[in-house]
Amino acid sequence: MGKHLMFGGVDVVELAERFGTPLYVTDEQRLRENFRRFKNAFSSVDSEIYYAVKANGNLAVLRILAQEGAGADVFSGGELYLARLAGIPASKILFNGNSKSDEELELAVLSGVCVSVDSFDELYALSEIAKRLGRDVEIAFRVNPDISPETHPKIATGLRESKFGIPYEEVLDAYKEAKQLEIEGGIRVCGIHCHIGSQILDVSVFKEATEKMMALVESLNEHGIELEFVDLGGGLGIPYKKDEPAPTPEDLAAQILPAFKGAKLKRRPKLILEPGRYIVGNTTILITRVNAVKRAAKHFVAVDAGFNLLIRPVLYDAYHEVAVANKIDEPPAGTYTIVGPICESGDILAKDRRLPKVERGDIIAIFDAGAYGFAMSSQYNGRPRCAEILVNNGEAEVIRRRETYDDLLKNQVVPPRLL
Amino acid sequence: MGKHLMFGGVDVVELAERFGTPLYVTDEQRLRENFRRFKNAFSSVDSEIYYAVKANGNLAVLRILAQEGAGADVFSGGELYLARLAGIPASKILFNGNSKSDEELELAVLSGVCVSVDSFDELYALSEIAKRLGRDVEIAFRVNPDISPETHPKIATGLRESKFGIPYEEVLDAYKEAKQLEIEGGIRVCGIHCHIGSQILDVSVFKEATEKMMALVESLNEHGIELEFVDLGGGLGIPYKKDEPAPTPEDLAAQILPAFKGAKLKRRPKLILEPGRYIVGNTTILITRVNAVKRAAKHFVAVDAGFNLLIRPVLYDAYHEVAVANKIDEPPAGTYTIVGPICESGDILAKDRRLPKVERGDIIAIFDAGAYGFAMSSQYNGRPRCAEILVNNGEAEVIRRRETYDDLLKNQVVPPRLL
Repeated sequence: MGKHLMFGGVDVVELAERFGTPLYVTDEQRLRENFRRFKNAFSSVDSEIYYAVKANGNLAVLRILAQEGAGADVFSGGELYLARLAGIPASKILFNGNSKSDEELELAVLSGVCVSVDSFDELYALSEIAKRLGRDVEIAFRVNPDISPETHPKIATGLRESKFGIPYEEVLDAYKEAKQLEIEGGIRVCGIHCHIGSQILDVSVFKEATEKMMALVESLNEHGIELEFVDLGGGLGIPYKKDEPAPTPEDLAAQILPAFKGAKLKRRPKLILEPGRYIVGNTTILITRVNAVKRAAKHFVAVDAGFNLLIRPVLYDAYHEVAVANKIDEPPAGTYTIVGPICESGDILAKDRRLPKVERGDIIAIFDAGAYGFAMSSQYNGRPRCAEILVNNGEAEVIRRRETYDDLLKNQVVPPRLL
Repeated sequence: MGKHLMFGGVDVVELAERFGTPLYVTDEQRLRENFRRFKNAFSSVDSEIYYAVKANGNLAVLRILAQEGAGADVFSGGELYLARLAGIPASKILFNGNSKSDEELELAVLSGVCVSVDSFDELYALSEIAKRLGRDVEIAFRVNPDISPETHPKIATGLRESKFGIPYEEVLDAYKEAKQLEIEGGIRVCGIHCHIGSQILDVSVFKEATEKMMALVESLNEHGIELEFVDLGGGLGIPYKKDEPAPTPEDLAAQILPAFKGAKLKRRPKLILEPGRYIVGNTTILITRVNAVKRAAKHFVAVDAGFNLLIRPVLYDAYHEVAVANKIDEPPAGTYTIVGPICESGDILAKDRRLPKVERGDIIAIFDAGAYGFAMSSQYNGRPRCAEILVNNGEAEVIRRRETYDDLLKNQVVPPRLL
């Protein structure tokens, strides 16, 4: 019998037997370590780390990060709800997004969180809502800094042609307009925000982004507009391929901090960063069982998880390392392509990987699945979503129960006349 | 005030007011008409239409199709569950898929449905399970016919390099092996199955596929293996672009039937077809409200539905027609790009469309969203999934209630020690 993969001090094959497959497994210790390392990298300035909830909105994950002192970058009313429930204080939450409904703006105002305003339309709507509710709402503007990071185009969010933010050349006008609205009450101008993309491995672009943003902050200062915080977003990439060189939080800080500290300002604002992937990416594996092995055009391994549970490979051509968890010490014996159970040819999790001989019943572990994994899952092909497990020093706890067929019926109604 | 879009005899803007947005709206009459037209196109032979549940697994939709006499192509235990619950008889269900778990194979055997076997591994597993349960299970083999339709590569499923099916040259061996297993009891060889892709607009490939499949059936006949049915799958495309020429079910029948009827066989098998998109695609619109309009690199319209609810544009570069539902009679006044609320630059629903002047609060209708729309939806970015409405001759009924923030918590567990 082969040696087994261990994760968070737990035998992964035993987890598969005990909780069934597919299964997301998150290591609590790694989560805490990632957060602390990121936070420490920026401790030489007044800073806050607002975890990007969109990467992984599991409530236990959020609760652990709340314990570590994280704030939250939320992108919807639902994420705001989850972050507050997990105990993240409203004072450390920024409500982001390019398309907020009236209901979401109301929720933001009533919750007392700061709102990153993406357009003039939103500014006016928010101002009206705050006045109507008789509350003040703190705002920042999301700036489009016109920066091109090297990443997948679908997740490069600070390009000139991106849907996000106020165009760079209109930012000053936006602040002037907000300052006018401030006089009427409701709006209170507090900060500035940008986000240039996700999974960025060449962090030199952050130097450029910081310089551009601090130049804006200086220019606003000259116009009498002082800001309490500068939020430079997230985007630090992680090494999905073994031995791939990847920047560290310290590397990121080395790009950001000199330009941030060097700005000529009366009073230095607080620095906010919004890491998501770095905090949760490597904390989690997806484990999945082999249902069939077949030699066709390729040597296919069909497993019980597909793009219903991990869409990154099909959506972004993303790479994830994989291993046969119950044969972890065996040498490679073939080149396999791992495919899921979904009805599309694109449902491929890993192409042409050298692995030990794979057989029906084996357990495959897919690494670095903590960011944009379960968060993007669906019930496509009528597949209930899987369970999530938290492991910590050899102990395992359920943090999300497996869905059943019954969950596919949730909220469905068949009009009686059709029966 | 502009004239409103009508759908199924109902004012779409009134639906948005009454049920909120985003909202999927399905026209029952169109659904029934589509099914009847497809069925009639093949009525000159003994045939059955097995609706592909993966396209739209809404229970009311399945119930209506059950009333029309549809069978079901199911791709998981969950879809089997939904199809049976909707009243589709087990005798008209084929359990497809390249990666079936032991639990799914057991469910298939106990339900008495026919199984389309994708690999030798699956054949042996199914045989063992049927013997253990003391039941017989009817099977077909899914054949990879090595056919290249002109469609998006992610949904071309009959290519030589596809993950689906038994390679063409191994099919005879597979049937011989199954016939051997038949002797032991459990397995009962019944049919043959292929599926060459989805959204196919040049139906001439179906002639080639039918000829290849019927040649196999003849060859099996010569080896003493008689089949009760031939299932040629689905794949008929629909016109997503206005005025785009698109084949009809009659065009499809004209490609398939001559080759099907012309095969030299002792007894002609039943013909099964598995349309999904044709049956449901044009029955449904997605309606969504404008949260902001912004001039940046493009003239962006930010709406409250994104790829959380309709992933086809970002996943397949798919095109959907759109209209401003509350200004349906107004002439174009600008070129707009419709984007969703999701945190990714790729979250674009429609690029550079000529539309009447769009303002915050307007209602946008996205057409032909019935296939692979809600079916692929997620809660990404913490967004509860939207409601579904059935309209019929001016009446509207809820067929899926809108999720609430509470639904984001469903099945989540925070270990008490973390509180």
